Amino acid sequence: MHPRTQWKVAVLPGDGIGPEVVAEAVRVLETLAANSRLALELTALPWPATAYHARHGVMMPTDWQQQLAGFDAILLGALGDPGPSSDSERYRLSDGVSLEPLLAIRKGFDQWACERPAAPLKGAPQYLADPRARDIDMLVVRENSEGEYVGQGGRLQRGTPHEVATQIEVFTRFGAERIFRHAFERARQRADCRAKQGRRRQFAAGTESQVCLITKRNALQHWGELYTEVFACVAADYPDVATHHELVDAACMKFVTAPWQFDVVVASNLQGDILTDLAAVLCGGMGVAPSCNINPSDRRRPPMFEPTHGSAPDIAGRGLADPTAMLLTAAMMLDWMGEEDPAAAAAARRLRQAVEADLAVHGGERRSTAEVGDAVLAQLG
Amino acid sequence: MHPRTQWKVAVLPGDGIGPEVVAEAVRVLETLAANSRLALELTALPWPATAYHARHGVMMPTDWQQQLAGFDAILLGALGDPGPSSDSERYRLSDGVSLEPLLAIRKGFDQWACERPAAPLKGAPQYLADPRARDIDMLVVRENSEGEYVGQGGRLQRGTPHEVATQIEVFTRFGAERIFRHAFERARQRADCRAKQGRRRQFAAGTESQVCLITKRNALQHWGELYTEVFACVAADYPDVATHHELVDAACMKFVTAPWQFDVVVASNLQGDILTDLAAVLCGGMGVAPSCNINPSDRRRPPMFEPTHGSAPDIAGRGLADPTAMLLTAAMMLDWMGEEDPAAAAAARRLRQAVEADLAVHGGERRSTAEVGDAVLAQLG
Ligand SMILES: CC(C)[C@H](C(=O)O)[C@@H](O)C(=O)O
Ligand SMILES: CC(C)[C@H](C(=O)O)[C@@H](O)C(=O)O
Repeated sequence: MHPRTQWKVAVLPGDGIGPEVVAEAVRVLETLAANSRLALELTALPWPATAYHARHGVMMPTDWQQQLAGFDAILLGALGDPGPSSDSERYRLSDGVSLEPLLAIRKGFDQWACERPAAPLKGAPQYLADPRARDIDMLVVRENSEGEYVGQGGRLQRGTPHEVATQIEVFTRFGAERIFRHAFERARQRADCRAKQGRRRQFAAGTESQVCLITKRNALQHWGELYTEVFACVAADYPDVATHHELVDAACMKFVTAPWQFDVVVASNLQGDILTDLAAVLCGGMGVAPSCNINPSDRRRPPMFEPTHGSAPDIAGRGLADPTAMLLTAAMMLDWMGEEDPAAAAAARRLRQAVEADLAVHGGERRSTAEVGDAVLAQLG
Repeated sequence: MHPRTQWKVAVLPGDGIGPEVVAEAVRVLETLAANSRLALELTALPWPATAYHARHGVMMPTDWQQQLAGFDAILLGALGDPGPSSDSERYRLSDGVSLEPLLAIRKGFDQWACERPAAPLKGAPQYLADPRARDIDMLVVRENSEGEYVGQGGRLQRGTPHEVATQIEVFTRFGAERIFRHAFERARQRADCRAKQGRRRQFAAGTESQVCLITKRNALQHWGELYTEVFACVAADYPDVATHHELVDAACMKFVTAPWQFDVVVASNLQGDILTDLAAVLCGGMGVAPSCNINPSDRRRPPMFEPTHGSAPDIAGRGLADPTAMLLTAAMMLDWMGEEDPAAAAAARRLRQAVEADLAVHGGERRSTAEVGDAVLAQLG
């Protein structure tokens, strides 16, 4: 890998609270770069956004993919119609249209893995009663390119009593194999990382990491069987990693009743969507949950980093949004850069420490967007 | 409706802990009948069961549907291979085969609605930290006949690097309309019932009940749009009921962060499977969660009542299983009979009170299956 000297980042503020939280992330990233050898070039784009749609009739220009391909990474605020109250023309888009760019960008750059780590942060809301919830330490890896999200199917006899809608889920062995292999690699990395920190976890027979496969193979048997077979093949290459299977319904329950038992969890696009959202709740909810969409097989295709929360039209424009999730998303972007660039890795650590230190002191307080940004900047020194 | 004088119930103990918990339900039901005008005829069948499969090569006889059609209701323990340890021949079935009868019976009698009420029981485990979790009072209504569970699709280029698996989701307007209408009817009934008990809930603009539609229409658009349109049509007939929509991922989060906000929730087969399991956790977990599969448009087709838990092969045969969920399942069956038969309605109330009283005193204690049965019988006086 030829190390990049400067990281070009497309900053997409998006809709609603997106621009507000992105502004804090930009301040913080610029400060980190100014005080280290980290070299960032941040370029804000006016799209995708509902406001852009209002002017141009589309969420993004037709050459969006060429434009974005020129960047190393994409940092997105939030998407979704901010609603009529914020616009004199009462312009309102359906979710389908306003969120389309998300799926288009994921698909366009084959960002086939979506990751969401879950480990509780001091000061973040704790929804579970059991004190063992403090020990949660999992990573949900979501297949992000196919499966339930291919958009195939349609509606027949539309509007009549005989109407039928079909939605076709398509899974390839290729897609399954790469996401499983990635999950096993992550499991090993996480075990190494824990070992370095002197924290060890024990799973079956001498293993220090585990991958849990999620399916609904007792009802959705076609891809359930494919996933089961491919998972077993891949697992054979990782004898040092324990494996486990859970049906998606049982997994959702266990995420609430005993989430500390999980390590890496790998799931299909839709089931992963649900489980990453539940994982976000476990580590304190939407206010603190980052996520990434990456292409681990081709780091030259820009990944997209986005907080899990939406555009929160109800509080948009009032400086009330908590930028914590956005700042942790920026840290996740720096982690990804850090795989090539030690300055980025160091910046990721500093940023995460600053956010965690701020949260530990002020978590739960009602603060403005800028106040949180200021406090994190103060922590950065 | 011509009232039935005697209720013929097919009792299917099934696998694992199924026979143990069913035995307690039978004791309790017989006691209730002996002490009231409730007339039950309970007939135990040796199938569906893995043991039956071991002898006959099938989980059920070929004429299972004719045989079951002669009953008014079906009470099922649990299904699933109890595993080699319990069988000298090390006979073991895949989940797919051993659970097949569940879906076959639901389909065979067009049990198109699955319901799971969630209200916390005193003495049952409480997983959420927020004290408002005590106010949870919701009913999840799951579409139980179509959608993701139709089993269509297949595998192409099997075993090669080019393999593709498809799984086709099929939704009809007919199926959507009947499940939504049922959900709205239930919402009204629940509001009436609360009013009678002097408990009122307030939703939007003067309404006392609410139905929340679940979809993933921003990604699974074909049936998402169909569901949205049909839901709006049906809702127009129920102006007294508030409506709401949640994406399934957001709904799962809210089930953990603020479940007390929900009233009736209606969802597709797979999304309903996930949400009913989460709802079960909210009201204390698998140990106390009943469910039913009913055909509200044709009460002459036997419904099936089953606890949410599985066959728990690890503890089977040792008298350790908690029969509470099975007893509450029996109460749910009596509720259903109670819509025609006041003696059954009274028995349902008595049974539920007895179980709740027992749980309030002994919840959390380690007791044998028979001890719980004895204690509930003692409560029944
Ligand atoms: C907006 C939506 C299409 C998206 C998804 O389902 O992938 C979102 O829920 C997410 O998790 O990023
Ligand atoms: C066993 C399985 C097919 C079933 C389902 O998904 O319907 C179960 O999870 C349930 O909820 O009854």
